[in-house]
Amino acid sequence: MSDIQSQLPTILHHNTIAKLEYDKLLIGDRRVYPFEKKYVVANNVFEAASAIKNMVTQGGGPLEVALLSLIMIARQNGKDEKAFREGVKALSLARPTNTTMARELNNLLSDILKAFDDDDFIFKVVKIVNCKLSYYDYLYDKMSDYGKTLIDNNDGILTTCFPEHSFFLSIYKAREEGKSFCVYAPETRPYLQGARLTAASLAEMGFEHYLITDNMVGTFMGLGKINKYMTAVDLALKDYTVVNKIGTLQNAICANYYNIPYYPFSISFDETKDNIRDVEIEYRDSKEVKLFKGVKTTSDEVRAIYPCFDIIPSKLVTGIVTPDGVRR
Amino acid sequence: MSDIQSQLPTILHHNTIAKLEYDKLLIGDRRVYPFEKKYVVANNVFEAASAIKNMVTQGGGPLEVALLSLIMIARQNGKDEKAFREGVKALSLARPTNTTMARELNNLLSDILKAFDDDDFIFKVVKIVNCKLSYYDYLYDKMSDYGKTLIDNNDGILTTCFPEHSFFLSIYKAREEGKSFCVYAPETRPYLQGARLTAASLAEMGFEHYLITDNMVGTFMGLGKINKYMTAVDLALKDYTVVNKIGTLQNAICANYYNIPYYPFSISFDETKDNIRDVEIEYRDSKEVKLFKGVKTTSDEVRAIYPCFDIIPSKLVTGIVTPDGVRR
Repeated sequence: MSDIQSQLPTILHHNTIAKLEYDKLLIGDRRVYPFEKKYVVANNVFEAASAIKNMVTQGGGPLEVALLSLIMIARQNGKDEKAFREGVKALSLARPTNTTMARELNNLLSDILKAFDDDDFIFKVVKIVNCKLSYYDYLYDKMSDYGKTLIDNNDGILTTCFPEHSFFLSIYKAREEGKSFCVYAPETRPYLQGARLTAASLAEMGFEHYLITDNMVGTFMGLGKINKYMTAVDLALKDYTVVNKIGTLQNAICANYYNIPYYPFSISFDETKDNIRDVEIEYRDSKEVKLFKGVKTTSDEVRAIYPCFDIIPSKLVTGIVTPDGVRR
Repeated sequence: MSDIQSQLPTILHHNTIAKLEYDKLLIGDRRVYPFEKKYVVANNVFEAASAIKNMVTQGGGPLEVALLSLIMIARQNGKDEKAFREGVKALSLARPTNTTMARELNNLLSDILKAFDDDDFIFKVVKIVNCKLSYYDYLYDKMSDYGKTLIDNNDGILTTCFPEHSFFLSIYKAREEGKSFCVYAPETRPYLQGARLTAASLAEMGFEHYLITDNMVGTFMGLGKINKYMTAVDLALKDYTVVNKIGTLQNAICANYYNIPYYPFSISFDETKDNIRDVEIEYRDSKEVKLFKGVKTTSDEVRAIYPCFDIIPSKLVTGIVTPDGVRR
């Protein structure tokens, strides 16, 4: 397994995403990054699930939080099947659109229940979780070996929201190979993940970049400055439909209009979902649209609406970067 | 001439856009609306030009400010050809992309120079200016007679930035005819004209509406909620290319993808410009992209970029609503 930590921005280091203090879980608060670097303390799995629901962490963060929560349950409750089942249920419900976490947790649950036979049960759970975390690092690394091949010298690469491990590893490796390129990061309203997480990480890692507002994507494509579109996704379906943060769809439509290829990265497909009719889109509190880091954007009487994710039909997807190659 | 004031939101009332206190000009500060309702004082035409440059007013505002500035020059300088020429030059340079103001001022300049022969010169200038302001109201009213016919019962209408007089008059008249519809207003980063001016005005006038973030346009089109796209424009060219606030282009691309017609409103075409090669796009201070009402959106090291306007090619324009009908 490659040690990928040095190739990743701070916000993607394991200890920054989440860390255990014996049976308490400290979750890196992405809502205030990069202005503050603080952790939200989850005293039990239900508080961890709430933190996920409240966007303390996002993208690949909830999966890491959920895995560490299994250790927290083991340390707090020992061999208690009900505690594990209820914990897994609470975590799974915290993020309805991205089903990767729910599927992984259900797989791990059976391993953990088998480990009840083991004398050193807690040690065994720690081992199961760490093994899974390392395996994810291995998959991210494999994905980026494919991702980097899609980056050419002098590329203008659009991303959106926070593109996660595989994208950052891809651009790290492309730069190591001597390629020069510029990444355009839209700010991603209303939570500003693009401005706060992506642009700040690009600056931290010394990548050439521009922060733009969400309404500038078509402009820079039209000016010929962007010729690749790459994002993480929250969900990939069997038919190559992908689900990702709001804004991803219109960027993909613009990419399609300008014949710019769109490559989302997905660590796993949800084989239980055939097509978009099986996807649940979270609607979040519309007051978020009327706020910007707590500052009002308009008058109180204004009505807003906030669907959290986009469903991008497969015809707009050039190829999905997976641990097994670029699938299309 | 129809009195259109009662059919317009507060921000479009003549006295809210700008008003003279004898030889001082008070310009409604759209940068802080709707949170504060205050005026910026321009003590002379150069301060008025600076106010335009600094976005105190925008859209149709600069034209009204420029017209009233002619009265200010007359009252301050009397029959001074140089003062008028320099004033018109300063105003024209304040807004390079939208050339309507420059063309109008140059037309009026010859009328004003002719009025030097008149004993009651200042009275004559006031009359020339008021006549022009009334004529604009008349044109807005005519345009909206065409605009309202494009609105159907149960429409979902997307606009962007602040769509100005003709749009508000169109929806006012459509509602008077018993049509029901919903207007979607993207917030228009970085200045938030959509949130602050458009959504607040829609709420004030009691129109059904939703404020959305700029990255939600494709989403609501994909959900079938939007079936018309209507905007003001800063410039319309002979070949039906239009120029408008950043974000207009990608909305038009998405509209085209979903077969949604796009109708920009333009009071006049710039007959001096044949095509996009003749358009100058303003780049504004990139730090605006990293701020939101003065609040930082990212870390200081991040690099941003801010083109202010989009050029929308004629193939994305269904028809331009003008005082003489819908031209296509």
